[in-house]
Amino acid sequence: MSQFEGTKVRTTVQPDHSGHSDQGGHRVSVQDEFWGRYIRLVQETVIPYQYEALHDRVAGAEPSHAIANFEIAAGRRQGKFGGMVFQDSDVAKWLEATGYSLSIRRDPELERQADEVIDLVGEAQQADGYLNTYFTVKEPGKRWTNLQDCHELYCAGHFIEAAVAYYEATGKDKLLSIMRRMADHIDSVFGPEEGKLKGYDGHQEIELALVKLYRLTGEEKYLKLSLFFIDQRGQEPNFLRQEWESRGRVTHWGGQTDHIDMAYNQSHIPVREQTVAVGHSVRAVYMYTAMADLARLTGDEALREACLRLWSNMTERQMYITGGIGSTHHGEAFTFDYDLPNDTVYAETCASIGLIFFARRMLELTPNAHYADVMERALYNNVLGSMAQDGKHYFYVNPLEVWPQACTCNPGKQHVKAQRQGWFGCACCPPNVARLLSSLNQYIYTEHSDTLYTNLYIGSELRTTLGGKEVKVTQSSKLPWEGIVTLKVDPAEAGVFGIALRIPSWSGKVRISVNGELLPALDALEQGYAVIRREWQPGDIVELMLPMEAHRVYAHPELRANAGKTAIQYGPLVYCLESADNREPLSSVSLSKEGTFTEFYDEDLLGGAVVIRAAGCRVKEQSWSGGLYSTTRAVVQPVEVTAIPYYLWGNRGSGEMKVWIPE
Amino acid sequence: MSQFEGTKVRTTVQPDHSGHSDQGGHRVSVQDEFWGRYIRLVQETVIPYQYEALHDRVAGAEPSHAIANFEIAAGRRQGKFGGMVFQDSDVAKWLEATGYSLSIRRDPELERQADEVIDLVGEAQQADGYLNTYFTVKEPGKRWTNLQDCHELYCAGHFIEAAVAYYEATGKDKLLSIMRRMADHIDSVFGPEEGKLKGYDGHQEIELALVKLYRLTGEEKYLKLSLFFIDQRGQEPNFLRQEWESRGRVTHWGGQTDHIDMAYNQSHIPVREQTVAVGHSVRAVYMYTAMADLARLTGDEALREACLRLWSNMTERQMYITGGIGSTHHGEAFTFDYDLPNDTVYAETCASIGLIFFARRMLELTPNAHYADVMERALYNNVLGSMAQDGKHYFYVNPLEVWPQACTCNPGKQHVKAQRQGWFGCACCPPNVARLLSSLNQYIYTEHSDTLYTNLYIGSELRTTLGGKEVKVTQSSKLPWEGIVTLKVDPAEAGVFGIALRIPSWSGKVRISVNGELLPALDALEQGYAVIRREWQPGDIVELMLPMEAHRVYAHPELRANAGKTAIQYGPLVYCLESADNREPLSSVSLSKEGTFTEFYDEDLLGGAVVIRAAGCRVKEQSWSGGLYSTTRAVVQPVEVTAIPYYLWGNRGSGEMKVWIPE
Repeated sequence: MSQFEGTKVRTTVQPDHSGHSDQGGHRVSVQDEFWGRYIRLVQETVIPYQYEALHDRVAGAEPSHAIANFEIAAGRRQGKFGGMVFQDSDVAKWLEATGYSLSIRRDPELERQADEVIDLVGEAQQADGYLNTYFTVKEPGKRWTNLQDCHELYCAGHFIEAAVAYYEATGKDKLLSIMRRMADHIDSVFGPEEGKLKGYDGHQEIELALVKLYRLTGEEKYLKLSLFFIDQRGQEPNFLRQEWESRGRVTHWGGQTDHIDMAYNQSHIPVREQTVAVGHSVRAVYMYTAMADLARLTGDEALREACLRLWSNMTERQMYITGGIGSTHHGEAFTFDYDLPNDTVYAETCASIGLIFFARRMLELTPNAHYADVMERALYNNVLGSMAQDGKHYFYVNPLEVWPQACTCNPGKQHVKAQRQGWFGCACCPPNVARLLSSLNQYIYTEHSDTLYTNLYIGSELRTTLGGKEVKVTQSSKLPWEGIVTLKVDPAEAGVFGIALRIPSWSGKVRISVNGELLPALDALEQGYAVIRREWQPGDIVELMLPMEAHRVYAHPELRANAGKTAIQYGPLVYCLESADNREPLSSVSLSKEGTFTEFYDEDLLGGAVVIRAAGCRVKEQSWSGGLYSTTRAVVQPVEVTAIPYYLWGNRGSGEMKVWIPE
Repeated sequence: MSQFEGTKVRTTVQPDHSGHSDQGGHRVSVQDEFWGRYIRLVQETVIPYQYEALHDRVAGAEPSHAIANFEIAAGRRQGKFGGMVFQDSDVAKWLEATGYSLSIRRDPELERQADEVIDLVGEAQQADGYLNTYFTVKEPGKRWTNLQDCHELYCAGHFIEAAVAYYEATGKDKLLSIMRRMADHIDSVFGPEEGKLKGYDGHQEIELALVKLYRLTGEEKYLKLSLFFIDQRGQEPNFLRQEWESRGRVTHWGGQTDHIDMAYNQSHIPVREQTVAVGHSVRAVYMYTAMADLARLTGDEALREACLRLWSNMTERQMYITGGIGSTHHGEAFTFDYDLPNDTVYAETCASIGLIFFARRMLELTPNAHYADVMERALYNNVLGSMAQDGKHYFYVNPLEVWPQACTCNPGKQHVKAQRQGWFGCACCPPNVARLLSSLNQYIYTEHSDTLYTNLYIGSELRTTLGGKEVKVTQSSKLPWEGIVTLKVDPAEAGVFGIALRIPSWSGKVRISVNGELLPALDALEQGYAVIRREWQPGDIVELMLPMEAHRVYAHPELRANAGKTAIQYGPLVYCLESADNREPLSSVSLSKEGTFTEFYDEDLLGGAVVIRAAGCRVKEQSWSGGLYSTTRAVVQPVEVTAIPYYLWGNRGSGEMKVWIPE
């Protein structure tokens, strides 16, 4: 019995280039007022801007070198390799985002640009299929000698993701062919067979990419190779440690080290034995994503259990309320349970994006609204907040509390920026945001048996097959400002299937109606979903009314940083105080314990947003009569506190910001 | 007119080896129940233990190499230099502490040990007077080529301090002669004259030491040399920067650097222009100490004003309530105004000791009780708390909030230890504690004109001359547990002079009586002192009653880390909560705003201490029904909160601790 028995696989490539992305057998296109704006921003600003940046044509910016490296590797020009060892991945991420963008809207000029880049990538590929400009240009002969640091498989993984996305959007298979050759080459180098390397990459990514390649092509060897990398990680003797020893304990980044932390890239113990999220958070969630994919596709119970444990530890012990993960900038890493400092935080944008990847795979594995809750939390807060309203400035670190002067004058906080930075240097986060937002259609629905699970309430059109019938579902949503969602269910003809509506954790008493008729009280949710199983008729209308009152959120008593504090949430949005609305120091402000909130939509606030006003108190600074310390308390007076959505912070100049407010 | 006119200087060496330390023309010996215990601990445990450590005879400890280095430099044995470039200073600090100890109580065996070490030091001195084992043994020919990093003048400064202390205690001038030869050698190398180096040390210390040497010997050249170092620092072109450039931007610690931060050792601008405490905090306060000395001895008004500005910035903007300074471990440095994080703190023990040095010099410059308040705060809290009750374990970092797991699992807090460490590695703090505690007699009184200023309430006997009469003042004190202080004033015959009693900032309404007769209300304090000017008769008794109620202290509203929190103080002692008395997590505990405190003396607590009980609340952790976040607040219930003196924390196993408590 093959270990892959029981999985459903498309064995021939049947591309869908209808302009819609393909996901799990259904196609979705986004038509949403709120998200549409950001998707257009990605299409109209981010992707073109990144294209210029990759070509070193952004005035005043550090050159990327990324395209230049390919030109040198392709023999089109002379020169030296420039940028980071993983610079290639920026080109890959741009191609991937471009693929998604073209699946939303064909754009001949953009497609021409992408085709040219793909031609260049093809020319840079070596005769044996190998593709990596760093080792082609700078260190020929050193391939696969430093997997710990050099990101060869990581870059390959990003190009595979790009190839899949571009093929699915355009039907053009040139990049796919290039990357299949590279994947085949990798398969000839790595594997359990005699003479092959038993290694794996220092930065996980190839694993999830190979699954995508397998899902598209049906080639089992890609799935097997992905599983090999996952199985091999953390086995003793430790490959990466041995490699480091044999290199003379030298790192790519220069200098000898006397210690190597295998937990940094989750290779400290075998993957199936891991119970706690540790190490570099992006590496972790990329790996978990592949693990969940493989658990589903292979039916591997031990992998599934590891996913459940790691998910639970990460989201129930080590996740910020904004969906950020990674509590320290040292190694951009997890620390330990309930250690979630607001001001020395890391919460890297890419890590939250990886968390969203993982959440979607968990939703594919098991329908459970908890996964979607986390996905939504990360999307509307940590990820969306990372991008400026101009699409050209980004946070890598997404703090929950900022004192700008500390970010410049206290070295322990210098990784935290009070304002979004330009898109330069190690530009991992901006292209990751671009590829996520332009593929948002992939995160709205999942299907299990004949039930359609609605995970995100985002206006969109779905086409799929349920209960043997072709079905179109048109979703319209007023989120995040109003909790009104409508699904128009259009089977080609009447058919029996389920529609499962996620009941968000932030929602009060939900009302659901079908064709205007209210459903009875929703006592029996199935894993957080209200599941409606019936014979659907063409034109049936499901309405979902989600109460959207601003409300307080409290943190677990073990989460010391938030003791005595509350956060404000409105729908999926976490709110924050900024000095633009509340005078500095913000530490003088507290919320009244029993005060109510008032909400209003301010159309002038950064494109329009619901603003929340709350009764609070603030220390009257002028009443302070002491020096640095005093036996006399300052006077406290009532004040109106103003909160705005977290994702909008830092768009009105530099100032203090905080999410958790003393009560 | 000489720039030194107006200063009083002893021009011949008139040692006092009566067994009492000499300070400012008076002699004081400590006889105090509270401090006597710690002074005995230094004498009976710390000094002998350090002697063994210097000789590499402590089982299980890293070798110090300090004595071995001298033996190699002296030609007594072969070998390689071991330890830090400033390892010599450990020998010097031991000799200095030994000197103070011998001034308290002669001890023939200890004196023999010290004389032997001094003989060894003498043998290690070079023919031209140069003394430094690193450059003698390891890098001969490289003297004075890396003042930025190599601590040559710093080590010399510590040996000068030792020489002065040892001479004053024993009358033996061998070490003094050695160090005068070294000082003369330094004077031949550094100075404004043609051909001399215009440099200064990367770690200030020589400046204050040369002042001590001048005060003992009356040799103006030592004062001039000290002033030269102070004047030269920060002048352009910057000596240390030029030196670094000409070294090829290489540091002693290995590797090239592309940046050198002159503010680290306060050489970024001339000393007289400095307004804000910056850089490495120990370097800063050692320098300020010398500046205050020089301002007084030379009457230099610009230096005095710089001292006032730096004192004010440091103590009114950048000082922890425990008297700790230095908000970051990056460079063990100050950060900026009101940035005093409790958990990522540095507050190095040595920095508080240096703050005490500076405070005493400021008291000598101008009588102002504020300096004494700060001195007392640092002494009873940050400094005393750094030492374990066994005298063998020390904190280098003195946090105000500790979560032990974070100290091991969050790299941003790994510099903070939840338990005191053994005395190894860079052992700067323990010998600094030893020399401070054994010279505590120098910090109790200052004199201005014919007034004796009482700065610390520590049982002691003073002999001095006031109003032309020889006077003995016997102080007895029940601090820190009871606020009852008695001064028996014994002039040889009746005489007119002032006794100025410091009214501590922590004290409520003070009562003072002379010979049982209560003085009228103390409306008119003079710079924080109650000054009694009268004709004193032999046997006059002054009694001071300082109300000692436990009370709350609040922090300035700009001090964000302490917003909404209170600290508890009882007399000079800052209190803290520990998990030994209050269940973890301590973040669940808050103090009732209006609750009263009860105090009782617990003789079983670590040698006896006043314990404070307060009404508070704590989150009932079992009532928490949510996951990591929840819309439902946990239930809060009344609880009795127990606080112990900060200086005793961490003596009952590893656990949480915090000074600032939400109210």
